[in-house]
Amino acid sequence: MMAEWCKPAGRVRGVLLDISGVLYDSGEGGGVPIAGSTEAVRRIKEANLKVRFCTNETQATREKFVAKLQNLGFDITLGEVFAPAPAACQILKERGLRPHLLVHDDLLPEFNQIDQSNPNCVVIGDAADNFSYKNLNQAFQVLIGLEKPVLLSLGRGRYYKETDGMKLDVGAYMKALEYACDIEAEVVGKPAKMFFLSAVSDMSLEPDQVIMIGDDIVNDVGGAQQCGMKAVQVRTGKYRPCDEQHPTVKADGYVDNLAQAVKILLEHLH
Amino acid sequence: MMAEWCKPAGRVRGVLLDISGVLYDSGEGGGVPIAGSTEAVRRIKEANLKVRFCTNETQATREKFVAKLQNLGFDITLGEVFAPAPAACQILKERGLRPHLLVHDDLLPEFNQIDQSNPNCVVIGDAADNFSYKNLNQAFQVLIGLEKPVLLSLGRGRYYKETDGMKLDVGAYMKALEYACDIEAEVVGKPAKMFFLSAVSDMSLEPDQVIMIGDDIVNDVGGAQQCGMKAVQVRTGKYRPCDEQHPTVKADGYVDNLAQAVKILLEHLH
Repeated sequence: MMAEWCKPAGRVRGVLLDISGVLYDSGEGGGVPIAGSTEAVRRIKEANLKVRFCTNETQATREKFVAKLQNLGFDITLGEVFAPAPAACQILKERGLRPHLLVHDDLLPEFNQIDQSNPNCVVIGDAADNFSYKNLNQAFQVLIGLEKPVLLSLGRGRYYKETDGMKLDVGAYMKALEYACDIEAEVVGKPAKMFFLSAVSDMSLEPDQVIMIGDDIVNDVGGAQQCGMKAVQVRTGKYRPCDEQHPTVKADGYVDNLAQAVKILLEHLH
Repeated sequence: MMAEWCKPAGRVRGVLLDISGVLYDSGEGGGVPIAGSTEAVRRIKEANLKVRFCTNETQATREKFVAKLQNLGFDITLGEVFAPAPAACQILKERGLRPHLLVHDDLLPEFNQIDQSNPNCVVIGDAADNFSYKNLNQAFQVLIGLEKPVLLSLGRGRYYKETDGMKLDVGAYMKALEYACDIEAEVVGKPAKMFFLSAVSDMSLEPDQVIMIGDDIVNDVGGAQQCGMKAVQVRTGKYRPCDEQHPTVKADGYVDNLAQAVKILLEHLH
């Protein structure tokens, strides 16, 4: 099988992997690995390709998230995972911002070192059940009370797939607050260029030496392409057939799952 | 005091009044009348001006809502109140739509006569505490499962003022679902032209014979102006000083409250 996205395979030295919907489907009890994915990650590493995991996951600290994935059988370490919360903390410190946090309880420890008194901005993550009317109102009231409201959003995903169905992601609530306050959020995480480039740079590679593999046509595929990477969409996770006719983003390739992507990639490398 | 919006006062035969933020501030225990507003409604009627109340209120049936306002001392009857739910029921019937309802519990009786089996659309109102993550996900899952998702939104307000602070209105949640499903909602209620015009028509008047008085610069003032009415913003309710420099909507006048609007209007009539 010839694949357009593999034509530059001679130059490929690294892979960026989305996690949810590519490695596993999240859900009650921790979620389940997608068939062939644990093996696929192992094969990437055995082929001496560099790999980083680029996730918008904000329902847990990176430590807990990585431990969960290790328990599911994945060869993954903390240093290989890029997630929005640490990137947000960096921005908060640089700009002297004190956040009101609307995030998942399990993400709170990531912000332990950040001054949260007398908030002058709001940070919103995938808060899931914490997205109550009461909590969204509190975030709204902080924003509307600021002379220049600043909203940092940990991702802008529309939805994701859990084992029991599609769930609204942080992007939907970001849009609610944007509209209510007539402002535009600053997105930390995918598809922000800085976020992809920091992962690529961490591998000491250039974007055209890296292939992104994700299930989100806009935030994974479109985001990576804007940084100069080739990007492939898997037909797992939140993938829907209509993604292949997306009006603005065209993936460099579509594969059934991560295992198939890795199989094709390794065939073209050798 | 000369007021631009009163120049055509010789032609004015009717008044359209927003309710929340103009007549009263809603909140725990039913809310409180805005000073001078009960008297102002009485003076409008004594001057033989026609009056209709044009509200995006969707937290209660019209019956309960009107009873509450009467208890607060307002001279108001059911037939004078235009609200989105009855307008939505009309649309649902005409188009054979079976709604999944994401609305306030107290609004449910308005939809008693509507087939809600096997939903082929979503109707969203100001559901307040019913805007849980679980409920918004349910509405999302109905929409994303439809080949052509239809979302009817009972208003598109950003927020409103209750006695204990600003609260997110239905428009914020409408935007969340619009973004998640990549669709555009159909708005029933203000600022939809049809909604204003049905109230004007019910008075047997033309738009240029009617003055709208509201606290929402976009949905009250802008909406009414698009129908050919003059529109005045009160500095009560959700009013904020920056509204007077709104980038796209300029009210025909700004007044401290309903009482002042009526005082000026009646002075120009006589």
